[in-house]
Amino acid sequence: MSEQVRGRFITVEGTEGVGKSTNIAFIQTLLDKANIPHIVSREPGGTPLAEEIRNVLVVPRDESMSELTELLLVFAARAQHLKSLIEPALAKGVWVLCDRFTDATFAYQGGGRGLSEAAIEQLQELVQGSLRPDCTLLLDAPVDIGMARAGARGALDRFEQEKQVFFDKVRSAYLQRVEREPARFAVVDASAELDTVQREIALALKPLIELYNGGAHG
Amino acid sequence: MSEQVRGRFITVEGTEGVGKSTNIAFIQTLLDKANIPHIVSREPGGTPLAEEIRNVLVVPRDESMSELTELLLVFAARAQHLKSLIEPALAKGVWVLCDRFTDATFAYQGGGRGLSEAAIEQLQELVQGSLRPDCTLLLDAPVDIGMARAGARGALDRFEQEKQVFFDKVRSAYLQRVEREPARFAVVDASAELDTVQREIALALKPLIELYNGGAHG
Repeated sequence: MSEQVRGRFITVEGTEGVGKSTNIAFIQTLLDKANIPHIVSREPGGTPLAEEIRNVLVVPRDESMSELTELLLVFAARAQHLKSLIEPALAKGVWVLCDRFTDATFAYQGGGRGLSEAAIEQLQELVQGSLRPDCTLLLDAPVDIGMARAGARGALDRFEQEKQVFFDKVRSAYLQRVEREPARFAVVDASAELDTVQREIALALKPLIELYNGGAHG
Repeated sequence: MSEQVRGRFITVEGTEGVGKSTNIAFIQTLLDKANIPHIVSREPGGTPLAEEIRNVLVVPRDESMSELTELLLVFAARAQHLKSLIEPALAKGVWVLCDRFTDATFAYQGGGRGLSEAAIEQLQELVQGSLRPDCTLLLDAPVDIGMARAGARGALDRFEQEKQVFFDKVRSAYLQRVEREPARFAVVDASAELDTVQREIALALKPLIELYNGGAHG
């Protein structure tokens, strides 16, 4: 028996309404065509317990949540998600496609809420060790376009209720992440036509997918 | 106007069934007699949101909670409790009497679950800065005595369902905390008769209470 090749970990990031769900469904069709076993998940959440924690995070309430509480809840859900779902899948050779991950924490809790990058890095180290996504697609669009789309969906959660200035900071923080680690990110202009967006996504994932089919699985 | 004298922060610690509730009620009578304004709270919990997090922590469920998730939830609740309740009270000169605090994290998640002390210290620093209790009463008793009392109360939560070996580790970790910081702790033999226990508690708190009445408030 050959040793199991580890699955790839692909994350999809972006502010509200940039089309993450639509494009995650598109990525699934790419992986299906390439016969790559995969699961789709999301953060915060991904397991029943992590979804309970998500619920605490997103439901609007009278008591104002402290920024640190928010940060620690995000990482509490992540620790559960990693241990119960992501790590076991990757170890079995299953690819994991995840709607948001730690870049979102740097963007929302760091950029948006103003929490220190050092604190987030400390928690990243504690919860993830050396685990990082193999590839991160950032769906980038001017904030007003995304907010209009998200607003059209109906009732807004605690994050969606934030104002444009918050999402401007989130978007800037995402773009700073890309500057730091350009090799891991593929930035896609999400304000373009859908077929253009999807052509770019397919192009960005092509190397990883070809490596899979040219490798032990080809 | 004179500057507001900061309230005192008193925590009560111990394993299951050592009589924390009974003795917290007794301490309240001591503070009332001394005309010291105070509130009573508990961890995890103490605010509606922190109690929601407590609920996630204690309710038994099928999915096994990762140790790190447990640790991060405890500190998420603590960050909220500190910001919404404890810090504002202390700043107004109100004393806070709390059923469990960070020593419980070192004892349960550190000693009991085996998480590293360094990780807990990091989170303590992140969430509390330099805040520590002014006085911590450790109600100490052999584990089997406390377990029998807790078991008699009815349905057990996720922590109370642990076995004796877990609580032995928790008790040892508490006693190690005392060795490290003997000046902050008062250890009371909780297996003694209640009037003996309460005489010892009164003796331990006497200096703090006398300082209050001899100070700006006397």
